[in-house]
Amino acid sequence: MANIAIMGFGTVGAGVAEVLRMNGEKLAAGLGEPLHLKYILDVRDLSGNPYADRVVKEFSVLESDPSLDVVVESIGGAKVALEFTRRALLAGKHVVTSNKELVASHGRELLEIAREKNVNYLFEASVGGGIPVLRPLFQCLAGNEIEEVAGILNGTTNYILTRMVQGGIPFDEALREAQAKGYAEANPAADVEGVDACRKICILSNLAWGREVPPEAVSTRGISDLDLEDAALAGQAGYRVKLLGRALRLPDGRAAAYVAPHLVPAASPLAGVDDVFNGIMIRGNAVGDVMFYGQGAGALPTASAVVGDVLDALAHREKRRSLGWSQRAELADVETELSMRWYLRGDGVPADKRFPGRAYITPEAMTAREAKALAQKTGAQALLPVLD
Amino acid sequence: MANIAIMGFGTVGAGVAEVLRMNGEKLAAGLGEPLHLKYILDVRDLSGNPYADRVVKEFSVLESDPSLDVVVESIGGAKVALEFTRRALLAGKHVVTSNKELVASHGRELLEIAREKNVNYLFEASVGGGIPVLRPLFQCLAGNEIEEVAGILNGTTNYILTRMVQGGIPFDEALREAQAKGYAEANPAADVEGVDACRKICILSNLAWGREVPPEAVSTRGISDLDLEDAALAGQAGYRVKLLGRALRLPDGRAAAYVAPHLVPAASPLAGVDDVFNGIMIRGNAVGDVMFYGQGAGALPTASAVVGDVLDALAHREKRRSLGWSQRAELADVETELSMRWYLRGDGVPADKRFPGRAYITPEAMTAREAKALAQKTGAQALLPVLD
Repeated sequence: MANIAIMGFGTVGAGVAEVLRMNGEKLAAGLGEPLHLKYILDVRDLSGNPYADRVVKEFSVLESDPSLDVVVESIGGAKVALEFTRRALLAGKHVVTSNKELVASHGRELLEIAREKNVNYLFEASVGGGIPVLRPLFQCLAGNEIEEVAGILNGTTNYILTRMVQGGIPFDEALREAQAKGYAEANPAADVEGVDACRKICILSNLAWGREVPPEAVSTRGISDLDLEDAALAGQAGYRVKLLGRALRLPDGRAAAYVAPHLVPAASPLAGVDDVFNGIMIRGNAVGDVMFYGQGAGALPTASAVVGDVLDALAHREKRRSLGWSQRAELADVETELSMRWYLRGDGVPADKRFPGRAYITPEAMTAREAKALAQKTGAQALLPVLD
Repeated sequence: MANIAIMGFGTVGAGVAEVLRMNGEKLAAGLGEPLHLKYILDVRDLSGNPYADRVVKEFSVLESDPSLDVVVESIGGAKVALEFTRRALLAGKHVVTSNKELVASHGRELLEIAREKNVNYLFEASVGGGIPVLRPLFQCLAGNEIEEVAGILNGTTNYILTRMVQGGIPFDEALREAQAKGYAEANPAADVEGVDACRKICILSNLAWGREVPPEAVSTRGISDLDLEDAALAGQAGYRVKLLGRALRLPDGRAAAYVAPHLVPAASPLAGVDDVFNGIMIRGNAVGDVMFYGQGAGALPTASAVVGDVLDALAHREKRRSLGWSQRAELADVETELSMRWYLRGDGVPADKRFPGRAYITPEAMTAREAKALAQKTGAQALLPVLD
C-alpha cells in the first residue's frame, strides 16, 4: 500500500481526493498496490467533510510518519507551502504540486533538496492544468534542441479575450462575466496582468534549457489595457489577439522570455484555442512544431496531472527522476535583442490595405525599442507584437 | 558511454543518425555520457555514406556485442523486423521502434519478452510520428479512466482530404498530388484504405486500457470512395471530413475501435488539423479533452520520438518501464452496439435546411446497421458518421 497526504484542501486538493476515489480501482491495478489517502492537512474546519476522519492540523504528523510516501502540496503561495515542501522533502517524502508560484520562484532549491534526499519533486499540474506538457517537454522531446515555446497559458485571460473578440464586449465587461462564472478571482490581477502566465513560461523555460529563468527577469504585459478596437481590427485582418508567454533560444545559446498580448495568425493552431482552454506550442529542431491543448485549470483536470505525478513518483521510488535546472540563465534583453513584426494603430500610422481603420503591421521585424520609437513618432495609440 | 545500433537505414534510420549527430552535445549533457552510434545494420550498399565505417551486414554482430545498449529498429514490416526485435530483446538489449505494423501485430509478445529480460521496448514514434502522445497517455494521464481516443492518425490521407476540401479537387487528383510531393507511396493502399490508421488506433487502445485490440478485429474504412460533393456539402454545414481512428470505452468496460471518415464539427480542435499534420484527442474522466498536435511523419520528427525513447530506455536501465498489455480485449460490435449520428446524401433523404443539396444529418443517434438500413430505404449514395 502507498500512503498519500494532501496539504491544503481547496479546489485542487479536493479534486485530488475525488480522483483517488473515483478511479481508485484502476489506479491500484496499474500500480500493483492500493493508493491510500492517509492524511489531509488543513487548518480549516472540515468536520462535515467525508474525509473528516483523516484531517490533521499539524504538519509534524506527516513529517514524522515513516509510512507516508507522497505529499501533495495544494496550499498555494510561497510561504507555508515553501516551508512544508522543504520539510517534506528533507523527511524523505516525494512531493507533487500544482503550485506554479512556488515552482517558478523556489523550484531550483526544492529540486536540489529532492536530489540530495533521492526523492521526486514533480509539478506537471503547475503548467497547463491537466494538459500533459512538462513531461513531454523534458522527456519525449529530450532528443531535440528546443527552439521556442509559445503558449496560451492562462485560461481566465483567454476567456476574456474570446468574449471580447466573439462577443464584441469591452475588457471590463468580459472580466465581470469571467468573475460571475467563477473563472476569475475577485482580485484578478495575477491573471489579467500576466503574472500567472509569467510563472508558467518561467517553468517551461527552466525545463526547456535547464537553466533558471526567474519571474522577476521576465518582461510581463497583461491584457487590462487592451482595446476592443484592436481585437476587432486584428480579426478583420486574419489575426486573433492572444496573451502568450513566449520563450526563445537565441543562436548564441542565450534564452529570452516575455509575456504579452500578440496578434496570432488565424492559421496558427494557437489561434483556435478559445475560452478557458490552454494551448502550448513547442518548437524543437528535430520535431518541428507540436502543440498541446486542453483545459488549463479546474479541479479535476488539475487533479488528473497531480495524480499522474503521484503514480510517477511511486514508479521512481528507488531511482528518482533526474530533473532540475541549474544556475540562472544568461538572458537576452527582450527590449533590444528580439526582433518581430508589430501592429500599430493611430491616425499617423502608414496605410495598410488589410485594415479598414488606421492600423498597420510593420512589414519588417524590429525590436520592441524600435517599435516604441515608431509608435511615438506616428502617435500610435496601440502597439502589439505579431507572432510569425 | 552508451552504444546504439540502427537496424534499417531508410528515412527513419537516417533521421535518427542525423538527430544523434546534430544534437549530440545536448544529448550527452542530459544523459551524463556520450551516445555513440556503434552499428548500422543494413543489407544495402552504403559505401558512399558518412556512416559507412559502422555498417554491418549480420545481425549477429549486434546480438553478440555485450557493450551494445540500445537497438533502434527502423526496418519496417513484421518479418525480419520481428525476428531481429525478438532476438535483440532476448540478448538483453533495449529496443526502440517506429514500426506501427510490428507493435500493433506483435507488441504483446515483444513486451512480454522485454519484461522477462528486464529491458525496455519503446515505440513512441509508432503513433503520431514526433508528437508525444503514447507516453502522455500511459503516464501523464494514468490517473484517468480513458473514455475515448479519436485521432487524425495518418498524414497522407489528411493531406488528400485537405486538398479535396480547400482545393475542390477530387480524390484521384489529390492522391496524385500527394504522391508527387512524396507524402504518399507509389502503392498508397495502406494509407488510403485506412490500414495505417487502424494499426495506430490499435496501439492507442492497447495502452489506454491495457488489453490487446488486434488490427484484424477493427472495422476499417478508408477514404478512397469518398466523394468530393460530400466534403463540400459538409463544409457548408459547418463540418470538416476527416479520417479518424476512434476507440471508446463502453459503460460495461468493453472497448470498441474503428476507422472511418467522419464529419467533424468545425468547433472541434480536430477540425483545424490540416495538411500532413496529425491531431490526437484523448478524453479522460478527470482531465476532459486534451489534444496533441504536430507532424505525424517525416524523418526528423519521427527520429525525435525515437531518440526520446532511446534516452528514456537508458534512464530506465536498472528498473525497466512497466509497460504492456494483456490478453485480447473483449470488444463491442461496432456495427450494432455503437450509436452515433449519421450524414446521408441522396434524393430520397429527408430535407435538412443546413444543406443546400439533398443531404441530411440524422437528429438522433443510431447504430451503423440502422444507418445502413436507412440509407438503403432512402436510396442514399453516401453515408458517414458524425463526431459529436
